Amino acid sequence: MSIKKDYKDMDLSAYFLGPKGENVELFKQLTNELIDDHVGYRKNFGKADANSISEAEKITPEYNKAVANLKEVMHELSAKLRDGSIPWATAGRYWGHMDNETLLPAILAFNFAILWNGNGVAWAGSPASTLMEKEVGLDLAKLCGYDENGWGYVATDGTIANVSALWMARNVASIPLAVKEVCPELVAGKSEWELLNMSVKESLDLLDKSGDKKNDVKSQSARSGKNLQKLGKWLVPSTMHYSWKKAVDITGVGEDNLIVLPVDEHYQIDLEKLDAIIRENVDNGTPILGVVAVVGSTEEGAVDRVDQIVKMREKYRKEGVDFIIHVDSAYGGYGRAVYIDEDGQFIPYDKLEGTFKKYGIFTENNQFMKKNVYEAYKAMGEADSITIDPHKMGYVPYDAGGLTIKDTRMKDSLTYYAPYAFQEGVAVPASIGQYTLEGSKAAGSAAAVWAAHRVLPLNISGYGRLVARTLFAARRFHDMVDSMKFEINGKTIKTHAVYDPDFNMVDWVFKEEGNNSLKDMNDLTQAIAEYTSTSKGGDLYSLDVLITDSQFNPETYGDAPVEFIKSLGINGEEYHTEGKLEILRSSCMTPWVYDEESFNYWEPRIKEAIQGKLEEIANSEDIL
Amino acid sequence: MSIKKDYKDMDLSAYFLGPKGENVELFKQLTNELIDDHVGYRKNFGKADANSISEAEKITPEYNKAVANLKEVMHELSAKLRDGSIPWATAGRYWGHMDNETLLPAILAFNFAILWNGNGVAWAGSPASTLMEKEVGLDLAKLCGYDENGWGYVATDGTIANVSALWMARNVASIPLAVKEVCPELVAGKSEWELLNMSVKESLDLLDKSGDKKNDVKSQSARSGKNLQKLGKWLVPSTMHYSWKKAVDITGVGEDNLIVLPVDEHYQIDLEKLDAIIRENVDNGTPILGVVAVVGSTEEGAVDRVDQIVKMREKYRKEGVDFIIHVDSAYGGYGRAVYIDEDGQFIPYDKLEGTFKKYGIFTENNQFMKKNVYEAYKAMGEADSITIDPHKMGYVPYDAGGLTIKDTRMKDSLTYYAPYAFQEGVAVPASIGQYTLEGSKAAGSAAAVWAAHRVLPLNISGYGRLVARTLFAARRFHDMVDSMKFEINGKTIKTHAVYDPDFNMVDWVFKEEGNNSLKDMNDLTQAIAEYTSTSKGGDLYSLDVLITDSQFNPETYGDAPVEFIKSLGINGEEYHTEGKLEILRSSCMTPWVYDEESFNYWEPRIKEAIQGKLEEIANSEDIL
Repeated sequence: MSIKKDYKDMDLSAYFLGPKGENVELFKQLTNELIDDHVGYRKNFGKADANSISEAEKITPEYNKAVANLKEVMHELSAKLRDGSIPWATAGRYWGHMDNETLLPAILAFNFAILWNGNGVAWAGSPASTLMEKEVGLDLAKLCGYDENGWGYVATDGTIANVSALWMARNVASIPLAVKEVCPELVAGKSEWELLNMSVKESLDLLDKSGDKKNDVKSQSARSGKNLQKLGKWLVPSTMHYSWKKAVDITGVGEDNLIVLPVDEHYQIDLEKLDAIIRENVDNGTPILGVVAVVGSTEEGAVDRVDQIVKMREKYRKEGVDFIIHVDSAYGGYGRAVYIDEDGQFIPYDKLEGTFKKYGIFTENNQFMKKNVYEAYKAMGEADSITIDPHKMGYVPYDAGGLTIKDTRMKDSLTYYAPYAFQEGVAVPASIGQYTLEGSKAAGSAAAVWAAHRVLPLNISGYGRLVARTLFAARRFHDMVDSMKFEINGKTIKTHAVYDPDFNMVDWVFKEEGNNSLKDMNDLTQAIAEYTSTSKGGDLYSLDVLITDSQFNPETYGDAPVEFIKSLGINGEEYHTEGKLEILRSSCMTPWVYDEESFNYWEPRIKEAIQGKLEEIANSEDIL
Repeated sequence: MSIKKDYKDMDLSAYFLGPKGENVELFKQLTNELIDDHVGYRKNFGKADANSISEAEKITPEYNKAVANLKEVMHELSAKLRDGSIPWATAGRYWGHMDNETLLPAILAFNFAILWNGNGVAWAGSPASTLMEKEVGLDLAKLCGYDENGWGYVATDGTIANVSALWMARNVASIPLAVKEVCPELVAGKSEWELLNMSVKESLDLLDKSGDKKNDVKSQSARSGKNLQKLGKWLVPSTMHYSWKKAVDITGVGEDNLIVLPVDEHYQIDLEKLDAIIRENVDNGTPILGVVAVVGSTEEGAVDRVDQIVKMREKYRKEGVDFIIHVDSAYGGYGRAVYIDEDGQFIPYDKLEGTFKKYGIFTENNQFMKKNVYEAYKAMGEADSITIDPHKMGYVPYDAGGLTIKDTRMKDSLTYYAPYAFQEGVAVPASIGQYTLEGSKAAGSAAAVWAAHRVLPLNISGYGRLVARTLFAARRFHDMVDSMKFEINGKTIKTHAVYDPDFNMVDWVFKEEGNNSLKDMNDLTQAIAEYTSTSKGGDLYSLDVLITDSQFNPETYGDAPVEFIKSLGINGEEYHTEGKLEILRSSCMTPWVYDEESFNYWEPRIKEAIQGKLEEIANSEDIL
């Protein structure tokens, strides 16, 4: 008997092992069941075939020496991981990098898939995961706002996804020049400028029109090595992930063609400056290959105004200027599920509050109620390609990055084999590897994402509720760190949040009240980072709070932090003389510190831990 | 009490789950112990902290609905994988792609690592796996013949490793041109030809000499986008993996600079033709960026004459011509362990037979006794970089490719951050991600390779014995398929091996005795592939033998197969008129069919299954 699932009423707490291993019995039970399922298959495949390892062999000294060897190595491994792992799974003591425990269904699926050792590169290596990857690729495309013409796949990680997006962008943008060489009649009368300012759709339509010369066109595209330096500039905000530097390097687009866009005090792309940069290049006859908008920057969780960048492209299109838009939502992408209702529709803004209430999602003062964040997420479906990583906010184990594209034909710009749909007599889905930078790949990644998506739908009833927990956590954590006060050696130390968050990342600083030296504030903040990590805090396992740091410097961030610095009573000039603003960077990915009850439990403990760290600093350093 | 391990006397059968799950109790025991180890850590980190999931919550309907949901998804997942996985683990019924079951220590380590969810990109994300990856990177470098100046890492797969090798080659080769721009005094008097014909060592020495201008030089290297088309030709044999096409595309070296090298009838690079191609380019003033030698080609298991290519480079160096040598031993690399003794020394050829006997390795008529295969493996340490995949012959789960380099400085040509060795006060090892194309990555990959290497040393006592099992399997399988005979409808069908194997891959064909039509032989061979796969053979689970196919065509392989075709009494011309030689391609990776006893068990069963397939073909197709 099948019973309709009501996801809204399912308790998310069952889906994790839990900070204290609360669900370990459930996990073991399912683990052992899946092992039995697998062994049952092995026994019954060729069911009359003999065993290869006899019972008699199992009692020989040689076998038992091997077992002892195996066990000893496992004990050593266990010690190494217990000694050298980050306690992400703690409910309320880790406030650093974007990492956490992952979903039980995803862990179980990955572990189970390993037993089968399928190779996800091709149908012939893993029929099951090829189908699952096709399915979750479309899940991701839909989550990003694409329709059935979209496509996606489970990449190794966000870096490979970003690199692949630029690779595709480069190859697609070079098609019109290749068409001019192979079938000039298709672009008769077009200037080089016009050929370099075609939309993705126009370029792909041209490729389609080239008919049986398609492969010739592809071989004259950027893959040949030609025209790489003609394609124009690749614009990425200064909040970018460092993978973009790898991307322009390896693709041959080249660092010389990378333009780093200034951000404003919200750490979002400064739209006026973006406009001016595009204008200047266009006036100089330099094409714009593409613009990257970040949704959930890795240092700030900032959400760029995708909607406004799309609008800007519309404006330029009217004057014959076009460029690709890529959204790097490796971190923030799954946040879009918060805005999607159970029918798959993006929830109208005026219905948000009511819908959030219905699904038990806290609304007051929530960053996901900000109109600009909402509009940015809404407009994602207008981008040409999007990076979205299941192994970040999808709570799926590594490796599971993701890349989606709006027009499925984009992926053909990378293929070397004619895409095939049928083996003789039998329909088989296209193998993933022909469209991706990766070749051989774990079937477990697709299986894990598949299992996670089936347990938690990609809308407000599933992932939406999970991501919302972290948004609450970030909101409460932000409000806490924007008002904490400690007394040490007769000095008052206060903490300040650097900005109001767009997502679940909170950046903050420590400052001595009345001391308006940026250097002193930086030193104190850095000391906190050192004493809440193994740097000076001692053994990982004995830390009672873990916080990571980062810094904003004028070279990368321009004047973005100046308003904040001035708001603390510090002379803004010091940012340039000191050369940096040191910050603590806390990703609030924990799914366990979100409601009043849990936050009330953790708040005093976090403060107590910090008080202790401040006392250690006062005792050991010449700062307080 | 610690007891010295004698690896030679350990029974390899304990290290796998087994074709029938023979070791399932051992696997479950260790799985459950490791889960307990992990949960113990969670409980005791912040040991006074409260649970986040209470017992009261676990008996609510919401929690139980979620558990039911989780279980249902797991059942569905199990059904999907049971229905759509390849039965690699069968001892003697799968003779196709290079895949198999993987080592228990590797599976356990990967599964265990998932619980910690470390991010192997950086020390801060996974201290334990960063250390393990450093260790196994050096393991791999040493296995490849490099000394302590070598380096290696666990890549996503062989494709990413190959792409990264070309990326590095490109960047390193561009350094002299960049130095000329930034510090011309260092290359005073050198012509462009001389700058483009420097060895890796010379280029890296130049970079070192640039001192505090190092970053400026790097920013003027190929990463800038400059000089990509000047660096010359990349030469890869026609037996290459298709990843090389991706590599020249994405790196901007360009398909126009790819030269596909002809192979001889042993499917090894034709050395005379290689020499002529280099000569011709040099005479035209075109540099050679690099030559790829394959050790264990994916279709034939062929081992290129690495030693002879190294010798050829010596010859060219004397006339001022230099190029990079990359060995693609993604498949065959672990085979080198067969030749390494327990002291880490490459075994002298005249001691091979005796040593093989001592370690219980079959010597008579073995492909690893061939002098040219031996010399090729021996010379690997002279190559500049090497691809070697743990997830192939390392019997480690995906994702675990590998890349090693001879001169550790090569990796710096990819970095964007100054390599750092110390955080204030605490020594931390360099984070892997700054040297690799990948960013975030599963800690499980490094942990799995580490555990496998600790259980099985990378010499004749460990991996050597395991790889040898597959070499025996291939030898016996080859001898069997080179002499099988079937009677169908009064016709005699014989099978023939295409070549004498270098490694553990056997290619073979089916031919009707007395019928010397290549077309008919191709059709019959292809029919066997179809009837031994789901294409026409029915459900995966009901197949009693699984064999995969491939083809050699004149466009890619030139005349390489002609001698074989003629040896069967077929007119060699038909290869060109038919346009292909259809082959069955059987990787003999099974560790269970190697000695006389096991082969005697499987041989009649394989023949019976094939007889059945031939009868099906005779009944259903118009071929026999």
